[in-house]
Amino acid sequence: MEIILAKNAGFCFGVKRAIKIAFDAAEEYKEGIYTLGPIIHNPQVVEKLETKGVKNIDSPAVLSKGVMIIRCHGAPSPRIIEDAEERGIKVLDATCPFVKKAQRYAIKLYEEGYQVVVAGDKKHPEVQSVLGCIDGNGYVVESPEEIADMPCRRKIGIIAQTTQSYSNFSKIVVELLKNAREVKVFNTICDATTLRQEEAEDLAKKVDFMLVIGGRNSANTTRLAQLCRESCKRVYHIEVAEEIEEGWFDGVEKVGITAGASTPLWIIEDTVKKLKEINNKG
Amino acid sequence: MEIILAKNAGFCFGVKRAIKIAFDAAEEYKEGIYTLGPIIHNPQVVEKLETKGVKNIDSPAVLSKGVMIIRCHGAPSPRIIEDAEERGIKVLDATCPFVKKAQRYAIKLYEEGYQVVVAGDKKHPEVQSVLGCIDGNGYVVESPEEIADMPCRRKIGIIAQTTQSYSNFSKIVVELLKNAREVKVFNTICDATTLRQEEAEDLAKKVDFMLVIGGRNSANTTRLAQLCRESCKRVYHIEVAEEIEEGWFDGVEKVGITAGASTPLWIIEDTVKKLKEINNKG
Repeated sequence: MEIILAKNAGFCFGVKRAIKIAFDAAEEYKEGIYTLGPIIHNPQVVEKLETKGVKNIDSPAVLSKGVMIIRCHGAPSPRIIEDAEERGIKVLDATCPFVKKAQRYAIKLYEEGYQVVVAGDKKHPEVQSVLGCIDGNGYVVESPEEIADMPCRRKIGIIAQTTQSYSNFSKIVVELLKNAREVKVFNTICDATTLRQEEAEDLAKKVDFMLVIGGRNSANTTRLAQLCRESCKRVYHIEVAEEIEEGWFDGVEKVGITAGASTPLWIIEDTVKKLKEINNKG
Repeated sequence: MEIILAKNAGFCFGVKRAIKIAFDAAEEYKEGIYTLGPIIHNPQVVEKLETKGVKNIDSPAVLSKGVMIIRCHGAPSPRIIEDAEERGIKVLDATCPFVKKAQRYAIKLYEEGYQVVVAGDKKHPEVQSVLGCIDGNGYVVESPEEIADMPCRRKIGIIAQTTQSYSNFSKIVVELLKNAREVKVFNTICDATTLRQEEAEDLAKKVDFMLVIGGRNSANTTRLAQLCRESCKRVYHIEVAEEIEEGWFDGVEKVGITAGASTPLWIIEDTVKKLKEINNKG
């Protein structure tokens, strides 16, 4: 069985940066360190941080002092940061710079009078952080089919969740443009996402089994698995190597591996190792 | 044989308005009346105007006095109008108000620093008139395939030829958005075009023969015929009823008729009459 690992699998720039901020904070402050929501969508990384004393909280209201880290996906609203700082909490902002850019574009579009539409997952914290920058004054659209229910607007401003697939994003743009007079679009899909998705799609076409590694709560990993399913019949989304069962690979000649932006290298390496062991037995 | 005439066949608002301006001018000025290029893309209407003394010229340079009518598609550039007026020529502007709107959007996008792209036919006078408003500083793209050759720009402003098909327009937008960071789109396809195209497509699916009537130099009629060909195997593009041959309809049960925006009612009526005659014989 041939094992092919995608070049662009695993941590992206924004995730690496966020994790570094969290581990550095653990080193510097020793205690009273919190992340507002999981720093990235990977339970194994979050667990590691906990062992270093970095705890996950859902609301800054529970804090009266200490260090609060804004996760990779951003804060639910800029006011949460201001309020915390006013109360003497030290805030470290680990928001991905590409998410920051999407937030700025949302504000710009809103200020220019556009009806803001975010092409993304309604409940995803990144999307929520973007909406939070414009006081919730935007629509979130997950698929082109949802647009029929949106009140018709003449001027629509569109941005994408940074991990959106271009194919879905462009379908949403086309659907919105149909009934609008003017549409202004910022393509905020980050380059790392595009690269990872394109490579995964190519790989999925060449193999008879795809393993997609990443948190089950990770939107970008889930989307990666979806994209692979369009080209490959057997696609498994796993979080850790331990989930792999030997029987999966009976008759498999080529297996492809990719991983979401929030999947750490050690989990990818464990997976490759496990596959090699199965290979040697077979 | 059942004959079905599309509801939205023939003259649109802009064409009606332009023809009225020309015939009214013939009435009022009697002589020295010229159109800068054919007033609409229909040779039969142009011939009728000639009998009323309205002549077609290619350049205002040949004129030293008289009345010059700007055709439905607009003037090649605003300066041509200014120059003519300075030389004492009376200019009547029969540019379609929807084309005027596209011209204004092109200027706006250009002034805002966007690379202007017009989705349309490179040589079409409407597209040329839009480009003329921004001193030629725009690209014309006829199909998404052409975009690969365009230098990559971060900020792209897109408008459509008013008679463009939405399907082609949206494909061009999607292709441009791929490599741009920001795209601003004015959907300048006119409602009459959309309605006529949608109705023609529906009709083409229901019949076994489609007749599309209009000038062979009419881009919107040609596009109408193209769209019909996607759903109906036998589509004929004719200019006048005289072209129809009886043998065409052997074995035909349902024939659909539509006509371009520049096709006068009398030609549509002649066509229906001719078909009824063939029907009665058969």
